[in-house]
Amino acid sequence: MIMDKLYRNALDKSPVCVGLDTRYGYLPQYLKDGDMSLEDKLLEFNTRIIDATADIAGCFKVQIACYEALGLAGLRAFARTVAYARGKGAVVISDVKRGDISSTAAEYAQGHFTGDFETDIMTVNAYMGEDAVSPYYPYLERGKGLFVLVKTSNASSVDFQDKRTEAGALYEEVASAVSRWGAPYIGESGYSAIGAVVGCTYPEQFDVIRKLMPNTFFLIPGYGAQGGTGKDIAQFFRHGICGVVNSSRGIITAHKGKAEGADFAEHARAAVVRMKEDIAAWL
Amino acid sequence: MIMDKLYRNALDKSPVCVGLDTRYGYLPQYLKDGDMSLEDKLLEFNTRIIDATADIAGCFKVQIACYEALGLAGLRAFARTVAYARGKGAVVISDVKRGDISSTAAEYAQGHFTGDFETDIMTVNAYMGEDAVSPYYPYLERGKGLFVLVKTSNASSVDFQDKRTEAGALYEEVASAVSRWGAPYIGESGYSAIGAVVGCTYPEQFDVIRKLMPNTFFLIPGYGAQGGTGKDIAQFFRHGICGVVNSSRGIITAHKGKAEGADFAEHARAAVVRMKEDIAAWL
Repeated sequence: MIMDKLYRNALDKSPVCVGLDTRYGYLPQYLKDGDMSLEDKLLEFNTRIIDATADIAGCFKVQIACYEALGLAGLRAFARTVAYARGKGAVVISDVKRGDISSTAAEYAQGHFTGDFETDIMTVNAYMGEDAVSPYYPYLERGKGLFVLVKTSNASSVDFQDKRTEAGALYEEVASAVSRWGAPYIGESGYSAIGAVVGCTYPEQFDVIRKLMPNTFFLIPGYGAQGGTGKDIAQFFRHGICGVVNSSRGIITAHKGKAEGADFAEHARAAVVRMKEDIAAWL
Repeated sequence: MIMDKLYRNALDKSPVCVGLDTRYGYLPQYLKDGDMSLEDKLLEFNTRIIDATADIAGCFKVQIACYEALGLAGLRAFARTVAYARGKGAVVISDVKRGDISSTAAEYAQGHFTGDFETDIMTVNAYMGEDAVSPYYPYLERGKGLFVLVKTSNASSVDFQDKRTEAGALYEEVASAVSRWGAPYIGESGYSAIGAVVGCTYPEQFDVIRKLMPNTFFLIPGYGAQGGTGKDIAQFFRHGICGVVNSSRGIITAHKGKAEGADFAEHARAAVVRMKEDIAAWL
């Protein structure tokens, strides 16, 4: 079960999730100057980072928006990046945040759990309710996983997610529902194949969320460029490692101003090591 | 301004939005049996329907999930379909329901408002709050538009959207916010470039929503296969035509069991005519 594997990776390698939110501007000069196609440049950038970090990173998260922005060439690079990381045995999260009615969700599930874009875990938006999520369930039984948005890392997440409801706040309602949906898919690690996204920029909300979701593994964005720190993560991991912590810009742009050649990825590796140590220091 | 054009189309042609949620199984036999590539078959299906209905349909909505399901070939067909319809002067809505933090939303905006996938209007999910929507604003000034999910047509939309909050229900909170966000982008028709998605399967909720969003144009899904009727639409159009009504399966599978040759699209046209008359009958 994929969430068992991700949990083991978080313990054995690190809870660091390397976010491949690759933008053209991030590429080192030698790649920009090279005569490869855009697709190949993006792939080269990503595969070098994957090679440099796969032994110490718990997983990789590939943000599809950065590739969709570049059209078909971008999406070819996305497909090849996901396939490359999975081919190395890494756990890959496709950060797609899809959400639609059941017949449409079934199409997204097919698109990201089979074929060109096949991944291990998808992120999903549940604003539309359970029938926007349930079409993914059959794939959970075949080893796939989900991370459903509960409390996101951005400043505006308060706009709707923090609205007061009878049960507390909307994010608590979503947390309870996601926990319930995930109950049939709990693996040997004690964690469900349906995980949740909770940003580390709101550490004070996490205690309530954790109580509502005792069998949920978390994808925790917001570390680094978005302001989250090792101290914030300590709040999440007080009772043990229960998630992976994503950093994108902090890792994949670590070479900026330092290395513009093929050794750029060593800076990504060093950033993962620093992040791993920062998190460990607070545990 | 695109929402002005869509409003005029709704008056002059019809408020029918033809939903190109094209699945392989929908193709007539002559296309399935042909030796074209999958991409070309999907494109042929779509372009024949566009040709047969463009003079009487207010707009086309292309559901990206159906194409994403088929990987890169599917997305090539998606890109060519959107470009073909826009090339004919039609208003095209890319039903992508994207939603992510601001830096990521900027990538989605680039992806769907420029380049290979350039469209007129995108659908957007605002669960993450305003900073997941504001990166699209600069494109509104360049003639693009949005439809933000408020109250969706599916059964499970009650799960979270109907949660009671201080101001009423969550969908009312979202409605008020979307109306506020759209205020700077109101065109000569009186409608904002930021529209809203409200399913016609919940007609009783519409009166409240309309009061909260007097300058908002609506994308109204749920007609036909999802159970919505002309009578439901009449509830929306009581004070005039304030939106477009999507039907997908009801139009693009109208040939099923009747025509398996190149004349299949005439059935799509007939379905649009019937739908237009059904809506008009209740006005």
